[in-house]
Amino acid sequence: MAVSGEVAGFTVGAAMAGVKDGTPRRLDVALIVSDRPCAAAGVFTTNQVIAAPCVVTRRHLERGKLRAIVVNSGNANACTGPQGEHDAIAMAEAAAAKIGCDPHEVAVASTGVIGVPLPVARITAAVKDMVLGPARWSDVASAIMTTDTKPKSIRTELALSTGIVRLHGVAKGAGMIHPNMATLLCFVLTDADVDQSALREVVPYAADTSFNAISVDGDTSTNDTLLLLANGAAGVKVRGKDLEAFKGAVRALCETLARQIVADGEGVTRVFEVMVKGAASDDDAKRAARTITTSNLVKTAIHGADPNWGRILAAAGRSGAKIDAARATVRIGDVVVFDVGAPRAFDAERVRGIISQPQIWIEVELGLGSGKAHAWGTDLSAEYVRINADYTT
Amino acid sequence: MAVSGEVAGFTVGAAMAGVKDGTPRRLDVALIVSDRPCAAAGVFTTNQVIAAPCVVTRRHLERGKLRAIVVNSGNANACTGPQGEHDAIAMAEAAAAKIGCDPHEVAVASTGVIGVPLPVARITAAVKDMVLGPARWSDVASAIMTTDTKPKSIRTELALSTGIVRLHGVAKGAGMIHPNMATLLCFVLTDADVDQSALREVVPYAADTSFNAISVDGDTSTNDTLLLLANGAAGVKVRGKDLEAFKGAVRALCETLARQIVADGEGVTRVFEVMVKGAASDDDAKRAARTITTSNLVKTAIHGADPNWGRILAAAGRSGAKIDAARATVRIGDVVVFDVGAPRAFDAERVRGIISQPQIWIEVELGLGSGKAHAWGTDLSAEYVRINADYTT
Repeated sequence: MAVSGEVAGFTVGAAMAGVKDGTPRRLDVALIVSDRPCAAAGVFTTNQVIAAPCVVTRRHLERGKLRAIVVNSGNANACTGPQGEHDAIAMAEAAAAKIGCDPHEVAVASTGVIGVPLPVARITAAVKDMVLGPARWSDVASAIMTTDTKPKSIRTELALSTGIVRLHGVAKGAGMIHPNMATLLCFVLTDADVDQSALREVVPYAADTSFNAISVDGDTSTNDTLLLLANGAAGVKVRGKDLEAFKGAVRALCETLARQIVADGEGVTRVFEVMVKGAASDDDAKRAARTITTSNLVKTAIHGADPNWGRILAAAGRSGAKIDAARATVRIGDVVVFDVGAPRAFDAERVRGIISQPQIWIEVELGLGSGKAHAWGTDLSAEYVRINADYTT
Repeated sequence: MAVSGEVAGFTVGAAMAGVKDGTPRRLDVALIVSDRPCAAAGVFTTNQVIAAPCVVTRRHLERGKLRAIVVNSGNANACTGPQGEHDAIAMAEAAAAKIGCDPHEVAVASTGVIGVPLPVARITAAVKDMVLGPARWSDVASAIMTTDTKPKSIRTELALSTGIVRLHGVAKGAGMIHPNMATLLCFVLTDADVDQSALREVVPYAADTSFNAISVDGDTSTNDTLLLLANGAAGVKVRGKDLEAFKGAVRALCETLARQIVADGEGVTRVFEVMVKGAASDDDAKRAARTITTSNLVKTAIHGADPNWGRILAAAGRSGAKIDAARATVRIGDVVVFDVGAPRAFDAERVRGIISQPQIWIEVELGLGSGKAHAWGTDLSAEYVRINADYTT
């Protein structure tokens, strides 16, 4: 039975399996099930040290449609050798047995400690006993958390020319970085009817300006996974102009989740958005924006509310993007601090006030072309260091 | 008159010019002078936002031999627009007038705050009144310091087939990163007689395994400069096998200075050396080693003495180097923690003891070829964040 406003045809469940140390004290296994096969597409970590569940899921996506996603937190099943792949397959088999489908129709995701064998029996037992229902999305969002302080879940409706479709996204943090737990997971489910080939374009399009435009610490996890499943239960075929609207909706949903992830980064007290304009190309703009958001010098300056614009320009200068300092202009909030190649006197206290806000806007105009891109970054705090140094194995 | 053991034909001086705020309270201008023209070569920051003194010095090097280096700390003369270049040239002119040479025979270097006009009159006045002598190398090393806690100066002798030559190197910190003071400067002077063309090969060779293999925070300064001047005053022509020995001596000297710089990085409590072996190529090994040393996750783990090897492998995996986790082995000190693709049980307390040392050895064997490289990194401490956030403009 459908729940009003929820994506049709999906049921979900979550359980406490005690993945991390055998003691069930929090939700750590979840299952997302469609009542019919879904067109599906995904993107995965670019890290060559890729976790077993990503390898298995990528393979299953190549074979065709999906029926379910099974996921655990508390253990990443990464750097676990051949056994890791067997364990990821066992998770898919358990979910397939539960719902009556082929194991190849199940996507698998894991997040948690690297290099520790997966306690797979606890997970498969939890899957077997899982209670599924249409409305437990917040439990799914909770079950995939590691060091996130808040579950991240969002749903949206989209009116297309032939009817209404619904989307639901759940995500967990990237660069959250509690030791070996630096993983971004995001699952987007929709009852729209979208061709597999179209879906394969939507996912990288949505990732590009959302999850690929955020950084907490510049490290790339072994387990990053973004999956989009479309089951068509709304009976609304998405094509032509509707497809453009759908792409936009998925991108907007992913951007919202990405911002939630950044704001919930470990030790984060401020988020800053960098807009680079006037670059020689969009790619150059991306490179510059993303290098600025990952610079420790910029991140510490933001943390200290320091109007230290030289660091912003220097980070752009080492990004690989074409830069001519003589043409560049830098704004912090609405204050121009560097004006077409020359420093401009400014009220330091005013700029300090701007950087003291929880959200800061930085704009770099390169004066070289029409390329533009934005990126979100976080400050670097002593708390980040404490969290990441005080781990005990 | 020559001082025993010092490089022949060079005199040096340093002065308190009050570059930063007009109050002379520390040495901040230095002059290095050869009594005859020197073959000279240099490498500069790869940052496209390049400071005026680097632009001017690069141009002077292209024109031919050098007689002197003039340098200041307290102001980087970077992002200072066209006036910055005029000011850098004025520094060269002041030095040239002082010693009686062409301004094109003078190299210029600056380090300090970015984006503040250079108080050039203070510097040129100090150069005019400078007292030069053969033995004030420690003053030169002090005058170029910014947030370094110790001057870095080293001399060495080299017995070649036709006689003895001497080398002297002074350096200041890289990634030292007191706000906008992230600059590496290194000047190596020798009384050997080396062809200009040979010298141009020596400098990148020496930089590759020394200053290009260290990282405190991954940010690249706008002012980085390494200069090598050879005046031939020892009367020893360096060629053939002697040239190989000379290259090795310059490299060794630069590596020593590079290690001093890393150990003196801001907030640094530990230095770690990463050796990557068995890579598909030396370039791949470099990429992997350098990414490991710049990973905030690895750096915080080292700070916390956390035997968190998954972060090391994950950093290698995102470096761009070819990696197959199934073939990789990771050692921390002499303990194997990941063994040809599988985690190996180890005594966590023992490894924690190893990482608690001030110097740590990490080895990653990739099992793909014969490429190898090493790199030095530092831990990331809360003190680093404090230093870099608490700056006031």
